[in-house]
Amino acid sequence: MTGLDNLKYDANGLIPAIVQDADTGEVLMMAYMNRASLEDTIKTGKTHFWSRSRQKYWMKGESSGHTQDIQGIYIDCDADTLLIKAKQHGVACHEGYKSCFFRQHADGSQWKVIAEREVDPEQVYGKK
Amino acid sequence: MTGLDNLKYDANGLIPAIVQDADTGEVLMMAYMNRASLEDTIKTGKTHFWSRSRQKYWMKGESSGHTQDIQGIYIDCDADTLLIKAKQHGVACHEGYKSCFFRQHADGSQWKVIAEREVDPEQVYGKK
Repeated sequence: MTGLDNLKYDANGLIPAIVQDADTGEVLMMAYMNRASLEDTIKTGKTHFWSRSRQKYWMKGESSGHTQDIQGIYIDCDADTLLIKAKQHGVACHEGYKSCFFRQHADGSQWKVIAEREVDPEQVYGKK
Repeated sequence: MTGLDNLKYDANGLIPAIVQDADTGEVLMMAYMNRASLEDTIKTGKTHFWSRSRQKYWMKGESSGHTQDIQGIYIDCDADTLLIKAKQHGVACHEGYKSCFFRQHADGSQWKVIAEREVDPEQVYGKK
């Protein structure tokens, strides 16, 4: 697939992908794609990633049902970061928040939770 | 500065920081911070980064005047990615576009420019 070869993948063959809610503009998460998961993302219209912690290829929502339908895929000036606008089904964060960025830096350098949990993670993924 | 120690910096001591326009929600850029540049970002209220390509510490806008005033700093669930909401003065992209994500993936796997250049880069940075 041409156009994907000139992206700048890192030493592990990965490129970071920011996912933004296409309707609200909220930044939902960032995860990593390799070329295969990017191709499948384009082909299926649903986000696919490479999990660095689990060393595993995954479709977002394969366990939870909380898939992301692609609305647009963008590349930055340096061709080393992707931005994906998507319709989020359910929530993006495995901790049950709509966005993974649910903590804000506050005075005293604490991280303060600024969002409401929308889903109980145990109901989606089972007990850890 | 407590609260910055428990972030997950990578092997090079860096953490990716997504910058989002606080007014419009547009994702402007992604760049990398180390702990020192994050501390200066918090202290000064303006974004500071570590340039991987130039191996150099920099304040965004130090050459161009196109600084970013911090409105909020957020951390994701894994504590390995920052989201920064900021007021962008001028444009974020060194190529003269408001956002670095000015190319969209199109049929045939081409990357199509979907934004207007707002600034002539040569006027800001001089000829390359």
